[in-house]
Amino acid sequence: MQVAAYATQGPTDPLKPFEITRRDLQPDDVLIDITHCGICHSDIHSARNEWGRAKYPFVPGHEIIGRVSAVGGKVTKHKVGNLVGVGCLVDSCLKCSACHDGDEQYCEKGSVGTYGGTEPVIGGPTFGGYSKQIVVRDAFVLKISEKLDPAAAAPLLCAGITSWSPLKHWGIGKGDKVGVIGLGGLGHMGIKFAVALGAEVVMITTSPEKGADARRLGVSDVLVSKDREQMKAHRGSFDFLLNTVPVKHDLNPYLGLLARNGTMVIVGAIEPLEPMHGGILLANRRSVAGSGIGGIAETQEMLDFCAEHGIVCDIEMIDMKDVNPAYDRVVKGDVKYRFVIDMATL
Amino acid sequence: MQVAAYATQGPTDPLKPFEITRRDLQPDDVLIDITHCGICHSDIHSARNEWGRAKYPFVPGHEIIGRVSAVGGKVTKHKVGNLVGVGCLVDSCLKCSACHDGDEQYCEKGSVGTYGGTEPVIGGPTFGGYSKQIVVRDAFVLKISEKLDPAAAAPLLCAGITSWSPLKHWGIGKGDKVGVIGLGGLGHMGIKFAVALGAEVVMITTSPEKGADARRLGVSDVLVSKDREQMKAHRGSFDFLLNTVPVKHDLNPYLGLLARNGTMVIVGAIEPLEPMHGGILLANRRSVAGSGIGGIAETQEMLDFCAEHGIVCDIEMIDMKDVNPAYDRVVKGDVKYRFVIDMATL
Repeated sequence: MQVAAYATQGPTDPLKPFEITRRDLQPDDVLIDITHCGICHSDIHSARNEWGRAKYPFVPGHEIIGRVSAVGGKVTKHKVGNLVGVGCLVDSCLKCSACHDGDEQYCEKGSVGTYGGTEPVIGGPTFGGYSKQIVVRDAFVLKISEKLDPAAAAPLLCAGITSWSPLKHWGIGKGDKVGVIGLGGLGHMGIKFAVALGAEVVMITTSPEKGADARRLGVSDVLVSKDREQMKAHRGSFDFLLNTVPVKHDLNPYLGLLARNGTMVIVGAIEPLEPMHGGILLANRRSVAGSGIGGIAETQEMLDFCAEHGIVCDIEMIDMKDVNPAYDRVVKGDVKYRFVIDMATL
Repeated sequence: MQVAAYATQGPTDPLKPFEITRRDLQPDDVLIDITHCGICHSDIHSARNEWGRAKYPFVPGHEIIGRVSAVGGKVTKHKVGNLVGVGCLVDSCLKCSACHDGDEQYCEKGSVGTYGGTEPVIGGPTFGGYSKQIVVRDAFVLKISEKLDPAAAAPLLCAGITSWSPLKHWGIGKGDKVGVIGLGGLGHMGIKFAVALGAEVVMITTSPEKGADARRLGVSDVLVSKDREQMKAHRGSFDFLLNTVPVKHDLNPYLGLLARNGTMVIVGAIEPLEPMHGGILLANRRSVAGSGIGGIAETQEMLDFCAEHGIVCDIEMIDMKDVNPAYDRVVKGDVKYRFVIDMATL
């Protein structure tokens, strides 16, 4: 089937209208009329081939919200008219030990990314959500509560789950002191989730002017990482740090903030990490870990938690035609905290 | 009290006979006649001030075995004549949350090192085990089974517990695939322990000639890290890596060996660590952690486990006068796997 989309033809080409071919509905497929799609920084890295593995034409978008408009003959989980979401994954083997454990993002056969992956039925690259419609295997389609604002729910599918998954994996809850480093798309969701999970949450930033907004989101304190006295006062006190900073930075001052047995989880894409001091890790049995998005069941759990607790992302809505200037603003960090494209404008 | 010891007076001065002052027996103190003391690479780093914090005169030694020759009035746990051991710690607050949890090595007030620490009763530096006698607070004295060869048990107090603690903290046992990187004092104990705990153990080395010895110690396979094909075959398969390599090295190839949720624990002293790739950590939710020695109860648990399983270190006994050439051999990695000083020769 032919579907309208916005695509780029190369790393320096702006996004513009483009017709793409999607596979016809298979028995376990869901056809979704896309209403909203969030803009993730990964969309930009990928469109501009900053990770060196782009395939063109390239259609970004993996924070997709829409309504089911058709289902294949074997689909029982989703019905026409339902509000649904699609995140970073559209397929995986569903048989390996990772998939069995609900970690489809770590599928041993390799999961299929929503964009830039290999289309498993018709071949070629998978095309993302800057598009009128998408066809997705039922197991990778998430239910979205009608209680949630669909536009503001879109970034939950990537920014949301990427922050949620490590908080849940490391068992964060009441009694834990959590630091969220960086206040952007991921950081603002990390704060909302950690607060809702009952933790004491501190925002850690190089920009004191972000403090007021962080307090509005529920943090009990703002720690300015350039302030030596403040850093000293919090030294060795954090059970968990969610590091959402998307650019190279010295990790050692943050490691020193960790309490005994504490873990800093890196969710930002930073290559390579600045050298860490082994002595700081040894001193308090500290850990540094990475975490990438989350599994399907875990994403559904997060979406249900959001519906229950009235949590969505803070967004700025744009028309499809304004995607290129929006990209430039994302790169400058000039968005609170996520752009979402109104797909009716495509 | 005056006690015979071997000391160095500065970073380039060889170790030679020296008279030291130890505190008189306090009510909760144990006086130990030292029979054996292991040589740890940290002794050399400290004696030569390679970590920049040495205080002279300096008496090394924190792998101490001996017999109780006197006890203070309040001591009930140890009796004259008992075989005992002392490791890297001789005091801590015993009140903070770390001490409460049996993590005296991470005491929030700062634990007192067996050498180079601050003597809590008479001041000045603490003096280690290259000495005829030592006075130690009862809570920091370990019981050693008469079943164990006291000379070969000495390195359990540092090399042993440093390998044991992370294996226990990360719950290693049957069903786990463990890689031990490096075959020296720590590595050979890591292999013995991980095998005895029921794990499948692979020795990972840059030196294929070490393979035969590793197999004798119980590993099921030897992985030569310079061999790309071998590394590829083991990629993503290890639940746990114990990295005992004491010199700078590229950590990324080892990180790639970790399975989903796997952890590499660094116990070697490396400053700073070579830059790691965040993408490798993210890809399988991998962790890198540090771990330093172990707590007192944990050390006792290890010593009891050793008595039960007949585990000791592989050692080479030397006379006290041969300590300086032994240091040079340790630096060259020319010892299988630990030197132990026969203190009767002092």
